[in-house]
Amino acid sequence: MAKKQKTFRPKPRLPKGLRDIRADEIGAMTNMLARLREIYELYGFEALETPAFEYSECLGKFLPDQDRPNAGVFSFEEDEDGEWVSLRYDLTAPLARFVAANYDELPKPFRRYQTGHVWRNEKPGPGRFRQFTQFDADSVGADSVAADAELAMLGADSLEHLGLKRGDYLINMNNRKILDGVLESAGIDPVAEENASQRLTVLRAIDKLDRLGEEGVTYLLGEGRKDESGDFTKGANLAPAQIDKFLVYLRAGNEARGDVLGALEPLVSESPSGREGLAELREIDDLLEAGSFKADRVRFDPTIVRGLDYYTGPVMEAELTFETKNEEGEMVRFGSLGGGGRYDGLVARFKGQPVPATGFSIGVSRAYAALEALGKLEADKRNAPVVVLVMDQEQKGRYQAMVQSLRGAGIKSELYLGSSGMRAQLKYADRRAASLVVIEGEDEQAEGKVTIKDLDVGSELSKEITDNKEWRESRAAQKTVGADDLISTVKEMLAARNTDQEQSA
Amino acid sequence: MAKKQKTFRPKPRLPKGLRDIRADEIGAMTNMLARLREIYELYGFEALETPAFEYSECLGKFLPDQDRPNAGVFSFEEDEDGEWVSLRYDLTAPLARFVAANYDELPKPFRRYQTGHVWRNEKPGPGRFRQFTQFDADSVGADSVAADAELAMLGADSLEHLGLKRGDYLINMNNRKILDGVLESAGIDPVAEENASQRLTVLRAIDKLDRLGEEGVTYLLGEGRKDESGDFTKGANLAPAQIDKFLVYLRAGNEARGDVLGALEPLVSESPSGREGLAELREIDDLLEAGSFKADRVRFDPTIVRGLDYYTGPVMEAELTFETKNEEGEMVRFGSLGGGGRYDGLVARFKGQPVPATGFSIGVSRAYAALEALGKLEADKRNAPVVVLVMDQEQKGRYQAMVQSLRGAGIKSELYLGSSGMRAQLKYADRRAASLVVIEGEDEQAEGKVTIKDLDVGSELSKEITDNKEWRESRAAQKTVGADDLISTVKEMLAARNTDQEQSA
Repeated sequence: MAKKQKTFRPKPRLPKGLRDIRADEIGAMTNMLARLREIYELYGFEALETPAFEYSECLGKFLPDQDRPNAGVFSFEEDEDGEWVSLRYDLTAPLARFVAANYDELPKPFRRYQTGHVWRNEKPGPGRFRQFTQFDADSVGADSVAADAELAMLGADSLEHLGLKRGDYLINMNNRKILDGVLESAGIDPVAEENASQRLTVLRAIDKLDRLGEEGVTYLLGEGRKDESGDFTKGANLAPAQIDKFLVYLRAGNEARGDVLGALEPLVSESPSGREGLAELREIDDLLEAGSFKADRVRFDPTIVRGLDYYTGPVMEAELTFETKNEEGEMVRFGSLGGGGRYDGLVARFKGQPVPATGFSIGVSRAYAALEALGKLEADKRNAPVVVLVMDQEQKGRYQAMVQSLRGAGIKSELYLGSSGMRAQLKYADRRAASLVVIEGEDEQAEGKVTIKDLDVGSELSKEITDNKEWRESRAAQKTVGADDLISTVKEMLAARNTDQEQSA
Repeated sequence: MAKKQKTFRPKPRLPKGLRDIRADEIGAMTNMLARLREIYELYGFEALETPAFEYSECLGKFLPDQDRPNAGVFSFEEDEDGEWVSLRYDLTAPLARFVAANYDELPKPFRRYQTGHVWRNEKPGPGRFRQFTQFDADSVGADSVAADAELAMLGADSLEHLGLKRGDYLINMNNRKILDGVLESAGIDPVAEENASQRLTVLRAIDKLDRLGEEGVTYLLGEGRKDESGDFTKGANLAPAQIDKFLVYLRAGNEARGDVLGALEPLVSESPSGREGLAELREIDDLLEAGSFKADRVRFDPTIVRGLDYYTGPVMEAELTFETKNEEGEMVRFGSLGGGGRYDGLVARFKGQPVPATGFSIGVSRAYAALEALGKLEADKRNAPVVVLVMDQEQKGRYQAMVQSLRGAGIKSELYLGSSGMRAQLKYADRRAASLVVIEGEDEQAEGKVTIKDLDVGSELSKEITDNKEWRESRAAQKTVGADDLISTVKEMLAARNTDQEQSA
């Protein structure tokens, strides 16, 4: 094989925005996903898995970044039938396809959770990857906002189950219908086709409040805004009186849920959508109270929009409130790690009849980064293997038998599989972060003994050691015992290590 | 949204060879993968995750189906830099790229396991999907065949840990070097570039022994073979005396490992590769004996080839020996569910210097099908939710509070989120395979009580029931208790259900 490729040697590298994930992160991530699964199942959502790619027309294009048309998705022509397929960019579009395809046989509401990779064909940047993991729950066929309230509770319970403490996070809710109500009060019909683009520009402007402040949003609601680099973003062309309505709206606050509703009421009292939106939030408030979810967990916040075009009712965002260092070393709020909302139109794309639906999605990589910043990752400290050294290549069978007996006792262990000498074997064990090494050299074998060495304790010393004799004499945290006591001694020494680690953790 | 799409309504469907996976299978699959992970980690392999797609030139094309050039892989041009990328078709090619890219910092040997989806652009068929899951272990940088022996042990231990019993499976091993030895004995230099295509045709012919029998293989080693449909497959054009050598080879048997080696020895005694291959199997035999892996678990079988071109030494195949019904309803051997071998050239593609490596891969979907056929899937029987019915839409908060208290007690439960009446709610609970439903109607509420109903027991009856009063009177496996006793009663009734299920399992 190598021969055939003589003329061309590829450079081993990954496309930008993709990365390999090593064992420690996989271990912590696996624990994290298991915890999320526990909560999602406790809430009565059932698992679903859909394939990585689907027909492009089934997935549609519902990404927030519509400034870059046709972008955002990885697509290719599929040989079998010549149709275009796309890698999924979220888990909601495949769910809509799944529900439409299996509508009659599904329980309604259909409550499903799904976790998996999604792919975005976007410009990669620091911490911004083109393959990442989402964890979603959705209720399809549920018109009651009890479904939305439940997802807010699920979000809050999930974050706490991951180890975040109350106060470190908030679920912020709003209702697109109230935003439409403000539009309506400003004399703009929010459902008229000819206003669709203006409405979207307004939503996007408000969505940028935390980044641009009230002044920036005012420009974007009006004629437009030039940023520091000189780039100009077109505005929604609202008149000053219309803009004022939105500014009053944005100042409605986000403390006690009842107060927020009270502040919003006069703004939308003339608008049917606005009144409907308020009534829905009021019902959500009742349900949250009934479930004992106070405003220290789930808030109402009029500034929450969510980027996706397809939301039709309540929207929510999970926010981490503690500060962390950004890439420039400044302390900043950690910010959003997921969200969702009601999308009554997505299944209708296929079926022609509206199917109410609502969902919530956690960005798993963001959640991972958050737990890492808080030192709350559950790494598996007992993951290090015992390495049995090969002191005599001719007697590998002896060492193999030791390894097999250790494994038989449930002890993670391995035979050194290379062909190098003792020094390299110790270096190997060190790189593997091995817990213990087992040594049966000529002397030990003659006496029917084995030596077991704790590498952490002896790691400083081992750098100086070149042969087995000197090694044995240093005797730092090592035991030489009868061969029959191998397993019991390894167990003892592992237990001692774990106790040490727990105390120092 | 629905409005905009008025003119076009996509059909909700999946490309051929892709499928959705529902909760029961995901649950059993998750348990299965966790068990494999336990064994792979016990053996001291560490986890790695690589992205779904990579540069096509890094993955290379090492699929067995070379009759369809450029096929087998899903590829597309990547916008960011205009280079071609491909979805990974196995987990070995990404590993070779990863090791080449991180060579200096990795412990050597590098022992990694990886599980994940792979994609093949092949003609889909019954049970033949274009997205499926593999579970691989590889040792890179290990020149000793102790690494190969270990993978055979890992394979055997994995299958038993999944629940297969001894006798239901075999790990069959061979060595490509012995096959090369037979070629050499037949006067064909197996490493000469000009013989590469003939060598591959010979390997493919032998690989088809189980399907075509000795006669078919004889044709394929000679001028070629016409199948029943009239299609002609070109042969390796060996002379009759050369073909005879292979027929003797194929009859070497596969019982006691020592006997197989004895039968092969005279066939390759004149060939350096052949002798080397035999010596390697002899060392593997010693190590298997040392680990107490007898021929009822790991066999030597000269007919094992494995389809991939890149193997350079020991190869192995995991075979299930029990019979199962095929699509035509005939009883057939279950057959292969994975395999692997030594591939010393794959990392060399990048590095220019040989890096010894060996791997073993389990086809997870095949393993799942096998466990299903044997009735050994670990489904989660306690997965059914408690559904709290909404008897009065105006009082959802009351029911929400019940759900939250159940969840607080760790009981999987949900509020009915639709807007339908009691009959539809019971139907919903039935479709959800709910364990219990909780009912608090007007009468119960007046008395401070709740009714809890076991759906399985009452499912026949419920079809006849149209209102709450009649329901309560039927009283099949239902209890009406004080509202304060909700949780304790639900726990009792769930425990009773689980006991029943265990007894009937």
